[in-house]
Amino acid sequence: MLSVEEAIETLLRAAGRLVGVEVIALIEALGRTLAADVVAAIDVPPADNSAMDGYALRHADWVEVDCAGTGAEGTERTVTSPSLPVSQRIAAGSAPAPLTRGTAARIFTGAEIPAGADTVVMQEHCEEMDAGVRLLRLPERGANIRRRGQDIVIGQRVLSAGHRLRPQDLGLAASLGAARVAVYRRLRVAILSTGDELVEPGDEVGPGQIYNSNRFTLQGQLTAWGFEVVDLGMVRDEHGAVREAMLRAAREADVIITTGGVSVGEEDHVKNAVKDLGSLDLWRIAIRPGKPFAYGRVRDKPFLGLPGNPVSVLVTLLVVARPFLFACQGVADTSLHAVPHFAAFTREGGAREDYLRVRVTQAGLEAFPNQSSGVLYSTAWGDGLLRQKAGQDIRAGDRVDFLPWALFN
Amino acid sequence: MLSVEEAIETLLRAAGRLVGVEVIALIEALGRTLAADVVAAIDVPPADNSAMDGYALRHADWVEVDCAGTGAEGTERTVTSPSLPVSQRIAAGSAPAPLTRGTAARIFTGAEIPAGADTVVMQEHCEEMDAGVRLLRLPERGANIRRRGQDIVIGQRVLSAGHRLRPQDLGLAASLGAARVAVYRRLRVAILSTGDELVEPGDEVGPGQIYNSNRFTLQGQLTAWGFEVVDLGMVRDEHGAVREAMLRAAREADVIITTGGVSVGEEDHVKNAVKDLGSLDLWRIAIRPGKPFAYGRVRDKPFLGLPGNPVSVLVTLLVVARPFLFACQGVADTSLHAVPHFAAFTREGGAREDYLRVRVTQAGLEAFPNQSSGVLYSTAWGDGLLRQKAGQDIRAGDRVDFLPWALFN
Repeated sequence: MLSVEEAIETLLRAAGRLVGVEVIALIEALGRTLAADVVAAIDVPPADNSAMDGYALRHADWVEVDCAGTGAEGTERTVTSPSLPVSQRIAAGSAPAPLTRGTAARIFTGAEIPAGADTVVMQEHCEEMDAGVRLLRLPERGANIRRRGQDIVIGQRVLSAGHRLRPQDLGLAASLGAARVAVYRRLRVAILSTGDELVEPGDEVGPGQIYNSNRFTLQGQLTAWGFEVVDLGMVRDEHGAVREAMLRAAREADVIITTGGVSVGEEDHVKNAVKDLGSLDLWRIAIRPGKPFAYGRVRDKPFLGLPGNPVSVLVTLLVVARPFLFACQGVADTSLHAVPHFAAFTREGGAREDYLRVRVTQAGLEAFPNQSSGVLYSTAWGDGLLRQKAGQDIRAGDRVDFLPWALFN
Repeated sequence: MLSVEEAIETLLRAAGRLVGVEVIALIEALGRTLAADVVAAIDVPPADNSAMDGYALRHADWVEVDCAGTGAEGTERTVTSPSLPVSQRIAAGSAPAPLTRGTAARIFTGAEIPAGADTVVMQEHCEEMDAGVRLLRLPERGANIRRRGQDIVIGQRVLSAGHRLRPQDLGLAASLGAARVAVYRRLRVAILSTGDELVEPGDEVGPGQIYNSNRFTLQGQLTAWGFEVVDLGMVRDEHGAVREAMLRAAREADVIITTGGVSVGEEDHVKNAVKDLGSLDLWRIAIRPGKPFAYGRVRDKPFLGLPGNPVSVLVTLLVVARPFLFACQGVADTSLHAVPHFAAFTREGGAREDYLRVRVTQAGLEAFPNQSSGVLYSTAWGDGLLRQKAGQDIRAGDRVDFLPWALFN
């Protein structure tokens, strides 16, 4: 049996980016993978600006006028001062004139600091008078100023090729003036189901039949990952039909995923079709649920054969297939960082790595009572997976590896 | 100052579902919020079926034929047995005949167990012979059978109204035969930016100007939450223009969000327009970044005024606005479960609740050196937020509340 790590590594060695580059509007790039670094072409902020509504001034002016000799420069103190004339008014977005010596400039948050000013006094520490402004408290020199390039300096790489764009990344790229970004085309993933026992939701189930749920789990998860799903639907359990569908999948998609029919057994046309049209390796992965797993090629397109049980489909998709698919999409870092949590139950370790459906409670993580691979309800009930390594006995209170569902996205 | 909890609670008390119900295809329901419970109309599985490829039989037949008196019933043991005739072949999806006494039925994974059979022997423990099948190992009675209703029983509520649909929920609903689901219409959220210093990415920034990044962060995050964004763009900093935009937002959207202009200061037309057209409360929330926050109404539509600094926008959107927006969308549980993690740094607690941008490292969570609300880069650098309660001194190694970005989605 392959360990989970070995399976992932073997797949990653075989993986490569399968998609080209396109340039799209930044506002539409959420979830897309960068094809080129985003490098700062400007400083952010582009000039010193005010962090407050208040008055910009030259610190030394006030020290001379109001406080000469009354305290060490650079320490805040309360002062009573005569009013100083207000020589200009600088709103955000306007270009200031240099500050006249011995005056203050009315300034608003985000507005550019005039040349000659080095300090902003927040308006709550000032009193407006007819003749100008009176300062009630003197801050340190340099106070309340956001410095040019404080956020980002020109030439800095702020986002790397291979990064999937989150909302704040869009904001960051926008703050640098990027209106368009180079991203990889969405990966196209074909999914198909075989099995004459499968019925589409909405139809009647006859004896021996079940509803095809895997198609929905797959379509949902692949969509959540930002892939384009080529849904070939249900294919008759018959060699010709399966072969036709596989050829179509290889023409229309970058990667092909099927569910079921990858364990040892005679009733499987998918395996034969894949062998026929390319190559196929049947794996036994030390994972539970999800031991049987197939990797191969249909013509030149990678093929992933997930097991058939609903929970096995979800777990192998999230744990084993995800890094491979992300790599094919051009994502640079496909790793997953479990978060530490605490078990509220006791469970012996097994021969395989277990991915338990668990729920967050006050007491810690609780496991769904029935961890069978057929019980899809456990995945809806749970908040995520607990990774129990092979041979890892878990006792209540133990620190364990937790994978909230959201982490896989 | 309002505590973060008080702010969230106040907003939630004011919140109510603002959207109607629509019935859509299950396959398109990812991320949508259920408007009605999903209740099982069938048992899952609908009948006992085989968990393995193998042979279905009546356990007592084999005990009588092969092993009578040689071992306690119900314990697995190795047997050498004569062959038994194979009376039928049951593929998944076909309806079996009752099992003939003293025979075995060839059966495949997922196929229905014939009446009279109570055990499936996996094929690896059988030997096929001309005259039938020879059993090498006898499992316990009932082995390798998935029971009718084992996953779900008729009448069981499997998903509740107010639940946001994840991939596995789609699979679960499909497994019950649901082809369509009742969900709430997507919440429409209007966003608009004011500020004459703002420039759209792609244009040139002049003196005193900055690129409008908040629009991109907002649009991205609201989209990630499944809302429909009504983007009113940038509005001139002038009373008439702001008022017009607000009226349009109130007509076209369910909720209105702006950024900036909600702290004490004279240069703000948004506040005046909102007061004019409805009502406005200015809050000071004990949160860092993000203290100033406005809540009000424009005509009959809720208005949220986020602060203007880029990190404050993201943090208040995720922490304060998110529960409110989800409640307006009809989401039942808007709470957020931080995961425990460990700090790799030392930091004194402040007067407000701090949301630090942190990164996961081998040593634990590390904080971005510059936690200023202007440094949006910290959010792209980080893996999520660490919630440092007011007055909570953090020492390296302390267990802390971690909020990976993904958890907010």
